[in-house]
Amino acid sequence: MDKLPIVLDLTGTFVFALSGALAGARRQLDLFGVLVLSFAAGNSGGIVRDLLIGAVPPAAVEDWRYLGVSLLAGIATFYFSHLVVRASSLILIFDAAGLALFAVAGASKALTHGLNPVMAAALGMVTGIGGGMVRDVLLAEMPTVLRSELYAIAALSAAAIAVVGHVLNLPVAPVTAVALISCFSLRVMAIRRGWRLPVAKFKEQGDPRTD
Amino acid sequence: MDKLPIVLDLTGTFVFALSGALAGARRQLDLFGVLVLSFAAGNSGGIVRDLLIGAVPPAAVEDWRYLGVSLLAGIATFYFSHLVVRASSLILIFDAAGLALFAVAGASKALTHGLNPVMAAALGMVTGIGGGMVRDVLLAEMPTVLRSELYAIAALSAAAIAVVGHVLNLPVAPVTAVALISCFSLRVMAIRRGWRLPVAKFKEQGDPRTD
Amino acid sequence: MDKLPIVLDLTGTFVFALSGALAGARRQLDLFGVLVLSFAAGNSGGIVRDLLIGAVPPAAVEDWRYLGVSLLAGIATFYFSHLVVRASSLILIFDAAGLALFAVAGASKALTHGLNPVMAAALGMVTGIGGGMVRDVLLAEMPTVLRSELYAIAALSAAAIAVVGHVLNLPVAPVTAVALISCFSLRVMAIRRGWRLPVAKFKEQGDPRTD
Repeated sequence: MDKLPIVLDLTGTFVFALSGALAGARRQLDLFGVLVLSFAAGNSGGIVRDLLIGAVPPAAVEDWRYLGVSLLAGIATFYFSHLVVRASSLILIFDAAGLALFAVAGASKALTHGLNPVMAAALGMVTGIGGGMVRDVLLAEMPTVLRSELYAIAALSAAAIAVVGHVLNLPVAPVTAVALISCFSLRVMAIRRGWRLPVAKFKEQGDPRTD
Repeated sequence: MDKLPIVLDLTGTFVFALSGALAGARRQLDLFGVLVLSFAAGNSGGIVRDLLIGAVPPAAVEDWRYLGVSLLAGIATFYFSHLVVRASSLILIFDAAGLALFAVAGASKALTHGLNPVMAAALGMVTGIGGGMVRDVLLAEMPTVLRSELYAIAALSAAAIAVVGHVLNLPVAPVTAVALISCFSLRVMAIRRGWRLPVAKFKEQGDPRTD
Repeated sequence: MDKLPIVLDLTGTFVFALSGALAGARRQLDLFGVLVLSFAAGNSGGIVRDLLIGAVPPAAVEDWRYLGVSLLAGIATFYFSHLVVRASSLILIFDAAGLALFAVAGASKALTHGLNPVMAAALGMVTGIGGGMVRDVLLAEMPTVLRSELYAIAALSAAAIAVVGHVLNLPVAPVTAVALISCFSLRVMAIRRGWRLPVAKFKEQGDPRTD
């Protein structure tokens, strides 16, 4: 199972890069803009994680394959976006899959670098939501994660399951499968059924009309 | 006085997290969005400082308590925001206090990591304004620091006083008190009286009517 | 030629800081906001590069001169912006020059830190476009690089030429000159003639009217 982190990481990079490329193509960016957004969306989460745990240079900088799969996802999306047009919700599915993969991979790598379980779960969540946040910030939009359906909670659930499995010494493969399925289905159900967390009831001072 | 940096840091984290949570609640984010914004606002400054001085993993990643006080501030703001509604300027006060605490703590930690005094003061300022900048960028707004009343100058004053006290070997507690009061009152007075720095007189080419 | 990286770096910092300061002055920021934007635009690219290759603390944090040239550029722009008003395209020229200098300096520093040639070229490009991206994000705008005329490609060309010259052991000065001229003229020609990369043909689902 030693290959698991790199496989999860590269797969997550690919699907997040797809998500970034689709968001870029939707905004009519040119080819290189789409590729920059692919790389940023696909690797920002992992790069932030690696910087925070002191794994420098980050895997995405040292290892060709991260750049490779990002460019592959970007070019494929750029030239074959007509194939995905019919499924406009595909970008959300890609995003959910990338979220699950990155949360698990992030928590796993944080544990192997000696972080305590709580912060490893938190870092897994941050890894999962980091790429999407950078993607949205680069497009000058408020990140989806801040208001979207159970986004961060889905990432946290996957990261927490992976961490609990590690602490209890459970076999990695089934634990990872459960974590991925949990995050992915939680996110997809939230999108389909509009599940949401409570929203802050914040009333502005001095405007009683909106009360 | 060895505990001073961590106490300043945790207090600054708490008040900046309050400031982040209030900004998030005001934008109608859900609970988790508010918590993410709390953590980002409360810890981005410190994390950036720690990455820049090579203190990896950053305190906010290694130490539970940063996450703890951030979540505490976020949850309190989320559920009791009605208590703070009557004081709409409270968010600015929180922000001023966090700015002062982070500027001093940032300069202090930079000095203990061997930075020269000028860059330690600059890094204290960056630490102070970093959390607010990330908070605003995540909300897709231009950071307050770039146009607000003496914001960065207030942070720089606190950081510079802390650095001068360190260089002159003055006792830490009174120097810290002066630095905090200086930054906080400078910022509050600037808000109350509308003190501002001069604004760039930039005239666009080819539009003589605005001359 | 040992001084080349620092000279390129400081010159690039200065012109990028000019570009940041002009963008800030155009948005009517106050003096300190302009200086913050100068520093951010001038040093973010280099700081990101240094964090990614593990050169901590980054040169811009350890070395006074980066702060110095940034402040110089910011103050000059703030007080003498009327001198540059007549040439509204000057900001684009500054930007092109900074892009070229940073791409070459970034690739060169990445090579000396042992990165493989492909990632060194990529990191040179990232270094070149990083400052401008942070500048634009701080102004709550979508980064120019994502949609602008051959922006990232110009940076990549300079970085790639520098890397190829290094790999083939060619003399540094002429290679650097070719790299700088290549990036700068590619960018300026793209601006003048409106050269562009193809734009994604992304059609939204369920809106056949826009077909």
